[in-house]
Parts: sequence; structure tokens; C-alpha cells
Amino acid sequence: MTEQIRIGIAGHGNLGRGVEAAVARNPDMRLAGIYTRRPPESLVPRDPATPVHAMDGLATHGDRIDVLILCGGSKEDLPRQGPELAALFNTVDSFDTHARIPEYFAAVDAPARAARRTALVSAGWDPGLFSINRVIGEALLPDGATYTFWGDGLSQGHSDAVRKVPGVAGAVQYTRPVKEAVDRVRSGTRPTLSTREKHRRECFVVLEDGADPDQVRHAIVTMPHYFDAYDTTVKFVTAEELARDHHAMVHGGFVIRSGNTSDDNTQVIEYGLRLDSNPEFTSSVLVAYARAVHRLNAAGRYGAITVFDVAPGLLSPKSAAELRAEQL
Amino acid sequence: MTEQIRIGIAGHGNLGRGVEAAVARNPDMRLAGIYTRRPPESLVPRDPATPVHAMDGLATHGDRIDVLILCGGSKEDLPRQGPELAALFNTVDSFDTHARIPEYFAAVDAPARAARRTALVSAGWDPGLFSINRVIGEALLPDGATYTFWGDGLSQGHSDAVRKVPGVAGAVQYTRPVKEAVDRVRSGTRPTLSTREKHRRECFVVLEDGADPDQVRHAIVTMPHYFDAYDTTVKFVTAEELARDHHAMVHGGFVIRSGNTSDDNTQVIEYGLRLDSNPEFTSSVLVAYARAVHRLNAAGRYGAITVFDVAPGLLSPKSAAELRAEQL
Repeated sequence: MTEQIRIGIAGHGNLGRGVEAAVARNPDMRLAGIYTRRPPESLVPRDPATPVHAMDGLATHGDRIDVLILCGGSKEDLPRQGPELAALFNTVDSFDTHARIPEYFAAVDAPARAARRTALVSAGWDPGLFSINRVIGEALLPDGATYTFWGDGLSQGHSDAVRKVPGVAGAVQYTRPVKEAVDRVRSGTRPTLSTREKHRRECFVVLEDGADPDQVRHAIVTMPHYFDAYDTTVKFVTAEELARDHHAMVHGGFVIRSGNTSDDNTQVIEYGLRLDSNPEFTSSVLVAYARAVHRLNAAGRYGAITVFDVAPGLLSPKSAAELRAEQL
Repeated sequence: MTEQIRIGIAGHGNLGRGVEAAVARNPDMRLAGIYTRRPPESLVPRDPATPVHAMDGLATHGDRIDVLILCGGSKEDLPRQGPELAALFNTVDSFDTHARIPEYFAAVDAPARAARRTALVSAGWDPGLFSINRVIGEALLPDGATYTFWGDGLSQGHSDAVRKVPGVAGAVQYTRPVKEAVDRVRSGTRPTLSTREKHRRECFVVLEDGADPDQVRHAIVTMPHYFDAYDTTVKFVTAEELARDHHAMVHGGFVIRSGNTSDDNTQVIEYGLRLDSNPEFTSSVLVAYARAVHRLNAAGRYGAITVFDVAPGLLSPKSAAELRAEQL
């Protein structure tokens, strides 16, 4: 057994906890430390032997960690942390504000390159695994169309939006693909689909005392950007029902590419995920990419990279020869 | 537009014809020539302007072709052609005798390395895209199980085996996944499945005049290795029915990885293909990998490689910056 890859975790929310669980399942890695903005002594790591430090400690811990996994959010944390920490560590993050990826990539690339570090940005499943399948699908079937469906799944952003509606005491929102649309796409006919035709939204809402259900429902279904372009249903439940039936962070979805290789022949490629826990799965993706980042840095690939730059074999703990013999 | 990649085709069966169709759909490539063991003048290319040469011509055409796609068979052609031609060209092939891949890889690697050529072996969908999904699935969910199902699809090898049975005038064989098994796998329970539980086989057979159907059926269903471990049905049809209803080379299948990221949470990844034309799709894969081989050779990656060594972005005609902006 060669030396274990030393993983650091920056930020200990759902993603950070998922990374702890994932590293425990990968014998070629060990957890070198968790870094948090909370008081370190207040944090209970999964394995009591894992060192917990204040986030400030990172500046002097460059020699303790092979790859640092950034588990902060895309809105507040990563735009600042990503470029800063890529000057000190090899990093992996899950920056997922699609429209700002080029800008973020550039901001991380310069410091990583200067410090001869490797920084993989925007890993996870979307962006991430779904992106890979969009690129490969288009490359294999240039005469075709790509469709991404999300769900059935709990959307954090949309749940938060519902929770901000006056009169709402608690809520979750599920995104669901519309079956008819999925069936049409799977048939290979390349339909043109509106936002409303692709997904519907379903909200489970706990009302505040005295709130008017019709008013709340109307405020939700007409909310610009979040709900107005969708068919949205609102179901009212008790606080107990919400806690009991809607706490799991299920998610998933699929990417379908259909195309023609000749006039007669249609080909359909489908990649799908069904996830009991969105954050735990995302963390598993980040951890596998940490292995690749460790190898790419050793091979001299410096700067920012994305999942598009990582050969599949680099994700596996097995050697290239083992993979050829066992899994090709 | 940068210069087009010049593709050569060695061998003009179903795969070679599929490569012609695929190159026509990729504007960054052009077909530099088709090389055949038949009399070149007997071959009608899809585009009449495509030069057709005798296979012998390859030895002196090294400067006309950027990537040569080997479209011969794994049994007779590739074991000889692969190593020979990798000394003269960058190559892509679909060598698919799984058990002999390490040996074939080594035989191609040495001459390619010596000649500073890049030779991608065993591309296609299985081995190929399915292999990638087996590797990624295992890397993401180390505590899990992988299942590969094939079909519904026409199997050439099994069809040939049926055609050799005395009394058979014509036949095709379809491989079909067993729905109950697929459902159990999709549920994430990681069942242990026997060969018989995973797939069934269905044969459509035209009898020779005077042949005994019961004898033919018995000879098929008890055939060692090909059929004895499966539930096999044999249906007798007329030559007209066989020609009319069973000429399409449909195929497909799926790779499912299910695993746990914690005791509570099961995650399921599924990659599936539904193909109207198995050879045309395989050819499309070979052509996309030819683009990657061209780039990897320019970057100094010499020797034999497999799909495990190719980053997804290299398959696309788009630049890394375009892919990040549009498809991440």
C-alpha cells in the first residue's frame, strides 16, 4: 500500500459531513483535519480522532494536507475561499453558480498556477457528472439534442424561497420531471419543450397560526423566476408531518442525448441518478476527484481544471493495468 | 476553423461504413481515404469523392492521415493489424475480446511508443462507454455493486452460433435483460444474480427443408457456453419474415452501480443506451475518440491508451473555455 492521500475539509455543513463519510469508505485516503469557522471544540467529528481546527489554521497547515475539499457555499464562501486557498493547497470544490463558472475558474486559475497547485472547480453531479454526459453525448451524436431533467428531488433554493413567503412556518419543495416529456425525449423524437412542460413543482407547507392558505398558495405559485413558469401544487401539512415525511435530502435526475447517426437510425443515451442523500453523493464525487487532483498535481498539471479535464481512470484507486484487466 | 483532422478507415464492413457516416457529421474532420482488402474499384464509398485504396497502400500513406480507424474484427484482423499499423499511424480500434485486452494492449503499446504514435485500443460502447461507467461508478460508490445488462439487442456471436446448427437455414438471436432482475438492481438492494436470472435469449430460426424443429431447438438450447446457462426460446419463422422483421442491428443495455454512502443512504447510478444501429453507434464512438487521439498525440502522449486515459473534454470539438461556459 502506498502512502494514503491526506484530505482536509474546509467547512463542516452537510457537504463536509458527507466528505467525512466518503473518506472513511476509501482506504487509500485519510482525513488530516476539519477546518471550521465555528469554535473547533463545538464540532463533533464522525471519527473522534480527526483533528478539528479553526479555519485560520489553514494558512500554516500547507504541509499537512494533500488535497483540501472546499465545502462552503457558492454564493458567499467559495468566491472568496476558492482563489485564496488555491494559492496554498490543491483543492476541489462544488461551485455551482453555472453562469459565473468562467469568472470563478479564472479567479482560481491564476493563484493555483503561480503556486504550482491544482484546483478542480465545480465538481459534483450538476455541474459535474451531468456535465460530462452532456459533453460526451454531444461529441458522440453531433446531430442530436440534449435534455437535462432534475428530480424527483428536494430543491434547497426553492424550499428557501417558499419559507420566505409571509405566513409560512416551514416548507420543502420537490422538483419533479413531467413523465410525458420524459417519455417523448426517450423516444428519440427531439421534442421542443417549454420550462412548464419539463418539470413541475410540489410544495409541502406548514402555515403560521392564522395565515390564509389561499393567500400563501397564490404568493407561492406566482413567485417570479422560482414558480411562475411552472405548474406548482401546494399542499398544507402539519409541522409534525413535515418533520416526519420530508426531512430526507433526496434528489436525482437524468441527462438524455438522442441523435441520428444516419437518416434511418436514432440512438439514445441516458445517464440517471437516484439519490437518497444529495449532499452525501455530492461529497462522494468530490472525494473521488480529490484522488485525481492529487495525481494530476504530482504529474505537473497546475492551475484550475474541471471535470472535463480528468480522465476516468484517475478517479479510481486501481492502477491503469488493473482497470484494463478488470473493468474494460 | 483550424485544419480538419484527416481520418483514414482500414476495413470497410459495417463499422467502416459507420465511420464514413460519422465523419460526415463532424465538420472538424474529413475522410482522407478508405483502405480495403477487396479490389478498391469494387467499393462504393458514401461520398464518391473519397479515395479508396488497397490495404497495402497504407505502408506509404503515413503522411496523408492523422488518425487511422481500424474497422477489422477482434478475432482475425486486429491482433495482427493493431501492432503493425500503430507503428505507422495514430490509431483507434474496437478490440473487444475482453479477456485478451491486456495482451493486445502490450502488443500495440511497444510499436506505438517507438514510433511516437498514439494508439487507443478497445473503444466502443462495451468495452468503452460501459467500461467508463463501471470505473466511475466504483470510484464514486466504493461500498457498492456494479451490474451490466445487455439488450434488447441482436448478438452477432450468438446469431452465428445458431446458424451453425445443422438444419438451420437462417437465424438471429436477441439478448434480453430479465425485467425482474433489472428492477431488483435498480432498487439498490444489490442482489446476487445468476447468469440465467440476468438475461434470456430469444432465437428466430428459419429451418432447412426437412429439418426437425424439435431437434434444432434442442441443439440450440443445450449448446454449451452460448445457451445452456440461459432460458432460451426458439421461434421458427419463414425466410421472408426473418428478412423483413429481423434485419436491424438494434442493441443497447445499461450499467447500474448502486451503493451506500452511509448506513442510511443508498445511491443508484444508471447509464443506458438504446441503439437502432449497433455498428453505427460504435463507429460514432470511434470517431469521437479519434479526435482525442489526435490531440493527445500532439501533446506528446505516445503509446497505447484506453478510454480510461481520455479526459471527456478531449472528445468534443469545442475548446475547454467553450465547454466550461456552455456545458458545465
